[in-house]
Amino acid sequence: MNEDGNMMQSDPKNTELKNPNNGWRHRLHEIIFEAETFYGKLFDVVLLVCIVFSVLVIVLESVKDYQSQYGDLYNQLEWVFTILFTIEYFLRIVTVQKPSKYIFSFFGLVDLFAIVPAYLALLWADAESFAVIRSLRLLRVFRVLKLAQFVGESKLLMTAMRQSMRKITVFLGAVLTLALIIGAAMYTIEGEQNGFTSIPQSIYWTIVTLTTVGYGDIAPGTTLGKFLASVVMIMGYGILAVPTGIVTVELAGLGKRPVSTHACEACSKEGHDVDAVHCKYCGGKL
Amino acid sequence: MNEDGNMMQSDPKNTELKNPNNGWRHRLHEIIFEAETFYGKLFDVVLLVCIVFSVLVIVLESVKDYQSQYGDLYNQLEWVFTILFTIEYFLRIVTVQKPSKYIFSFFGLVDLFAIVPAYLALLWADAESFAVIRSLRLLRVFRVLKLAQFVGESKLLMTAMRQSMRKITVFLGAVLTLALIIGAAMYTIEGEQNGFTSIPQSIYWTIVTLTTVGYGDIAPGTTLGKFLASVVMIMGYGILAVPTGIVTVELAGLGKRPVSTHACEACSKEGHDVDAVHCKYCGGKL
Amino acid sequence: MNEDGNMMQSDPKNTELKNPNNGWRHRLHEIIFEAETFYGKLFDVVLLVCIVFSVLVIVLESVKDYQSQYGDLYNQLEWVFTILFTIEYFLRIVTVQKPSKYIFSFFGLVDLFAIVPAYLALLWADAESFAVIRSLRLLRVFRVLKLAQFVGESKLLMTAMRQSMRKITVFLGAVLTLALIIGAAMYTIEGEQNGFTSIPQSIYWTIVTLTTVGYGDIAPGTTLGKFLASVVMIMGYGILAVPTGIVTVELAGLGKRPVSTHACEACSKEGHDVDAVHCKYCGGKL
Amino acid sequence: MNEDGNMMQSDPKNTELKNPNNGWRHRLHEIIFEAETFYGKLFDVVLLVCIVFSVLVIVLESVKDYQSQYGDLYNQLEWVFTILFTIEYFLRIVTVQKPSKYIFSFFGLVDLFAIVPAYLALLWADAESFAVIRSLRLLRVFRVLKLAQFVGESKLLMTAMRQSMRKITVFLGAVLTLALIIGAAMYTIEGEQNGFTSIPQSIYWTIVTLTTVGYGDIAPGTTLGKFLASVVMIMGYGILAVPTGIVTVELAGLGKRPVSTHACEACSKEGHDVDAVHCKYCGGKL
Repeated sequence: MNEDGNMMQSDPKNTELKNPNNGWRHRLHEIIFEAETFYGKLFDVVLLVCIVFSVLVIVLESVKDYQSQYGDLYNQLEWVFTILFTIEYFLRIVTVQKPSKYIFSFFGLVDLFAIVPAYLALLWADAESFAVIRSLRLLRVFRVLKLAQFVGESKLLMTAMRQSMRKITVFLGAVLTLALIIGAAMYTIEGEQNGFTSIPQSIYWTIVTLTTVGYGDIAPGTTLGKFLASVVMIMGYGILAVPTGIVTVELAGLGKRPVSTHACEACSKEGHDVDAVHCKYCGGKL
Repeated sequence: MNEDGNMMQSDPKNTELKNPNNGWRHRLHEIIFEAETFYGKLFDVVLLVCIVFSVLVIVLESVKDYQSQYGDLYNQLEWVFTILFTIEYFLRIVTVQKPSKYIFSFFGLVDLFAIVPAYLALLWADAESFAVIRSLRLLRVFRVLKLAQFVGESKLLMTAMRQSMRKITVFLGAVLTLALIIGAAMYTIEGEQNGFTSIPQSIYWTIVTLTTVGYGDIAPGTTLGKFLASVVMIMGYGILAVPTGIVTVELAGLGKRPVSTHACEACSKEGHDVDAVHCKYCGGKL
Repeated sequence: MNEDGNMMQSDPKNTELKNPNNGWRHRLHEIIFEAETFYGKLFDVVLLVCIVFSVLVIVLESVKDYQSQYGDLYNQLEWVFTILFTIEYFLRIVTVQKPSKYIFSFFGLVDLFAIVPAYLALLWADAESFAVIRSLRLLRVFRVLKLAQFVGESKLLMTAMRQSMRKITVFLGAVLTLALIIGAAMYTIEGEQNGFTSIPQSIYWTIVTLTTVGYGDIAPGTTLGKFLASVVMIMGYGILAVPTGIVTVELAGLGKRPVSTHACEACSKEGHDVDAVHCKYCGGKL
Repeated sequence: MNEDGNMMQSDPKNTELKNPNNGWRHRLHEIIFEAETFYGKLFDVVLLVCIVFSVLVIVLESVKDYQSQYGDLYNQLEWVFTILFTIEYFLRIVTVQKPSKYIFSFFGLVDLFAIVPAYLALLWADAESFAVIRSLRLLRVFRVLKLAQFVGESKLLMTAMRQSMRKITVFLGAVLTLALIIGAAMYTIEGEQNGFTSIPQSIYWTIVTLTTVGYGDIAPGTTLGKFLASVVMIMGYGILAVPTGIVTVELAGLGKRPVSTHACEACSKEGHDVDAVHCKYCGGKL
């Protein structure tokens, strides 16, 4: 819970016993931040249900048929959830020992972004800026990210992802450069009559093709364009293999098998295993 | 065969010899459940052919041209197979020692669902509920799942799938949350005039794009939408790598075999399994 | 070259020296089947060029614009190549020691199928069966398979593919069963007005979706259909990982790391490494 | 920097101290080619920004709306960047010790191709050849490839790619042969009324399908065609696994590290590298 700014666990000699005011705070903290007591678990489950329902309200509100029928109900539910989450947000700030650490933690910011749009909609609710306000309210979807809090298994995946991030960045840089060059070439070959109206549009087509998504909203019309498209697709075939390979190797822990940087003092050769005692080339002690 | 509720194999002192009535039962059981005798094999092959043909009848019945021509034939064949499978189902119940265990086993339920729809169609066969009845009858397709019974190789794949299930669940949870947020963003950016008529529709588009299926029935029309779509596709690129990596690692057995760093005190050799108590080279206690 | 039915190499005491007639045969054999002498290499390269050009003729003949212009030229070239390949085919039969073995080898059959369609077109060249004859002639494309003869690197890939064949078969069986059930469900949900005109058509759609191809010629129209389609796509996501995992593990040689089936005589526990001398649980000798 | 033709580093006794003229040359060389001094770093960053902006100008110039508004500005910026890059190109030639080695190195050629099109556009700027000149100018996009110079992480990926190149070539050859045969078959089955107007067109469709791109601009219409298409898709499923497997195995280093089966005669330990001469545990000769 340190990531939420809570120092209580790591500070066993806290002032709670001396300061009776801290009694309810400590108990509330246990309920809100911990999930080991009965009420702590109950709070988490209720919160989870609230989050799911509030997201559901936003999603269903966007469906025209439902909105005309239940528009008012959605609006009321929206405010009920916003107020609930606001109370929850302030309780979190009050009960945590280092509020600033919680506020600027990832979930602190997510909690804030989950309630702010609804209040902003009050301030700028003119007819003109209606669409913009809707988009702000949609940011409340971030609330669902809280769901991740409850999953403990994700560590390994995150680690594997983070460790391959650098390799994937290099790889994506190469892919995007390629997309730029291919996009420019396709723009020249196909031209506007086949939907390649500009280089950005052609780059969009190249990414759609390289990633094997292939909407078909833009498709090559000339023979040369189709030939180049075939080359791009087959290249995408090979390219698709690279991120998969990177992540697999990270997950398998094979990328970490380190070769010792220690060079043999006798023959100066490198590349020994970490567990090697003698140089495998000349037999000298490492 | 224990999974079908058959305890005979594991109960060598069964009452068969004393109770002569059990003679035909035991023989029928061997034919229906086992595939080691000649008749047992014959039964399985005939059943397999019947299942394939009955599924074929359902599939071909749905093709308009064939139905107008051979509609009656299909109907008759349908009933022949239904009656055959009903007889087979009751024979299975009669010959097995613990019928309740068979009935509630996976294949017991599949066998039941394979015959029930045809009889239900008799009860509610009004003109109005025709479409619903058809759908019930389509459940007979489950019959084909019996095919899996005959394949012995599938264990390893199932194990690898089951062991990676938890990691894949976390992964899918993250992907669906992402799809929700991207869907909401695309709904705001593109709006109804480009086919993103509601957030559920936008989520559908996001999943179509993230999985690189890309029907093209909904495609972004605005420049910002196309840019975001490109980002989503490239993300899908990297994301696609994760389940592949998980399954590969499971299949390779690399995920489950942590090698202990503990060396044998007697012979100093390393590389023991984590669950090893004795050194596998010299037999010394670890 | 044994796969082509040539036993000369493995029969060092052949009758060539005694029978002077065999001199030219042996030399021709060396030129046609081997690629180690200058003329042998020349023959292979010329043959390769001929194959590529003959395939090119068939491919270009199908393009309307070119055919109206150069139709006669194509026809003549077609016959030149057919006669050349016929001569080559009979030379192969004459020079090889065991003709029957060559004729029924893979490349023997390919060589035959490469020339037969052109002659069959002569026999049945009525106006009516014209289309059929064209398709027979297209079988000459098999000629290009000869190209594989010249590539030596493909062994490893073929071995990995063949070794994973059984696992992939089980996997494909499961995928096809799934496609059948999903297809039937989508047919019931979507119905004919959305393009799901029959169960086979729905199965086609399911395969298009599961493999992430996604043409978009058939796409779900109802909300329930779109939901099920999303589930299918995400399932396809996970399913796509399985064949990749299988092939990767085979290529890495990780699938072969066998655990000994030998149980410890002292404590009956299994799962020892193949190189284990002592039981890793109780220390008893294996 | 040897790849840029610069021999200074590897030639410590260069004539710089004796020849005072080489002073500015050496300093300029350090600024242009190295990134270890402050001015060297500054130069690289400024150059990088210039490249990105010049590419941006080309890309935005192709968007119709922007071009009509800012056409002249783009033209001027285009010339500013061209002149800057020309100066940079000649400075590189002057300051490097072996100019010919730089000119014919990969980035030397890229630098040249980045400036030549703009000058060629001056020579042939007739109204008729306008389109062609535009395409020449688009070659300036190659300039962006310089970006790769600044990324140091890409080595490992490149090595893995290059080492799997041969296996991937064999694999692609097999896939293309397959695409040819399937294309010809689909052309015969579907015919022109379903969009399969020629064999090259059908091959294009096959590649679109095998790579799971699936535009949907051409889709099978007949039942037989749909069946064959389903088979192709499922094949593509399995085939897609092969390059992924190859690259993963290369990245994991599993493809290159065969462990010798030779045991040390002194200590009997196994698991030595194939290139090991001495036992890595006891130092005994292998």
